[in-house]
Amino acid sequence: MDASVRAIVFDVFGTTVDWRSGVAREVEAFFKRHAIEAQDPLAFADAWRERYQPAMEEVRSGRRAFVTLDVLHRENLLIELRDRGIDPERFTDAEVDDLNRAWHRLDPWPDVVAGLTRLKQRFIIAPLSNGNIRLMLDVAKRAGLPWDAILGAEVARAYKPSPEAYLRTVEVLGLAAAEVCLVAAHNGDLAAARACGLRTAFVPRREYGTGQMTDLEPAAAWDVIATDFIDLAARLGT
Amino acid sequence: MDASVRAIVFDVFGTTVDWRSGVAREVEAFFKRHAIEAQDPLAFADAWRERYQPAMEEVRSGRRAFVTLDVLHRENLLIELRDRGIDPERFTDAEVDDLNRAWHRLDPWPDVVAGLTRLKQRFIIAPLSNGNIRLMLDVAKRAGLPWDAILGAEVARAYKPSPEAYLRTVEVLGLAAAEVCLVAAHNGDLAAARACGLRTAFVPRREYGTGQMTDLEPAAAWDVIATDFIDLAARLGT
Repeated sequence: MDASVRAIVFDVFGTTVDWRSGVAREVEAFFKRHAIEAQDPLAFADAWRERYQPAMEEVRSGRRAFVTLDVLHRENLLIELRDRGIDPERFTDAEVDDLNRAWHRLDPWPDVVAGLTRLKQRFIIAPLSNGNIRLMLDVAKRAGLPWDAILGAEVARAYKPSPEAYLRTVEVLGLAAAEVCLVAAHNGDLAAARACGLRTAFVPRREYGTGQMTDLEPAAAWDVIATDFIDLAARLGT
Repeated sequence: MDASVRAIVFDVFGTTVDWRSGVAREVEAFFKRHAIEAQDPLAFADAWRERYQPAMEEVRSGRRAFVTLDVLHRENLLIELRDRGIDPERFTDAEVDDLNRAWHRLDPWPDVVAGLTRLKQRFIIAPLSNGNIRLMLDVAKRAGLPWDAILGAEVARAYKPSPEAYLRTVEVLGLAAAEVCLVAAHNGDLAAARACGLRTAFVPRREYGTGQMTDLEPAAAWDVIATDFIDLAARLGT
């Protein structure tokens, strides 16, 4: 990658943190606490996550004004519970809120803190996630992610892969698009960033476990292809 | 202060960093580099800063759409240079940009890093400054300020003391106003925050040096009055 890159921005769900195990862990504890049986927590996590793109699409399409991911996650949680015959009215608002904050308590992949710490010495580092500021802040504070700032959908008021999500982030950074590199485990995210002029780095992750069928390999000649964040730091000379 | 406070947000120019010495240092170096004589760098810093409130008032009043403080600082720099008979056309855009970034290279008061590091263990800590995200990010990265996120005017799209600057920050934090405490060396900032329901902490600073006439004392019974950020951390039990 050329030497002009000044900032590295990161996809978070899947790329930086293992959302699936973390959400399943919290769902499992919630079901146990409420004596709800015959539910597979991993399947619940997958189903909850599957409602993520269609919910954001309402905002991206302009059919709905911008609302944060915490709001979308909570709506999707209620729908998913009802779909499984679990009446959300059984729970207090505080209990639902707490389960919704499972997304605030996700663990990073094991290489993340070490890799980010090295990258931070030379680059501005920030999340460029669809997660809102408080969500990203809670994940970072709990896991010790040393971000220089928290950027992404709530600052840009736009969800990836809308171009505005990338372009407004570049603008806030006061940089040219080519001075910013997106790191992601998702080829689609990188393609959208490249279309906006950003540099791109692919790090494969097994976010869906052994059954994962997509994003196992880079789908294009991204500027950097790294095995994890420590390898990424080394490839970027830090 | 009551135990419900979860986030501490900070005024930055004057409260967290010594803008006057920092800007004067950069102005002095700039004048020397360009062989400009008979200018007092501290007086130039004061005059540049004096144009700050009227420029923001254009935005606060609605007469002008939101623009970042970097933009306002640069406009004010050009006006101040012309006012002193120094034609800005003498300098390249890059030279003017670099002088404008003097505000990105300010030093914190000596107690700040130690105080913030202690407060961060128990509270969410973030700037609530009129400075834009990149400006705050550069100051933090250079000085090692351990913010959990960078909030303030650019995220809120409003300048203090407009209520929106405080209320949108509270909203982004996902908290009630009474769960957020503003720390400032300026009584006016604290009065505006209190009117929005935030908690308030006063830390006196000699930002204008020995000639300072205002904000030497708390002008109201703020929730906390501390001598510096280390004393503040102790008073908040960290």
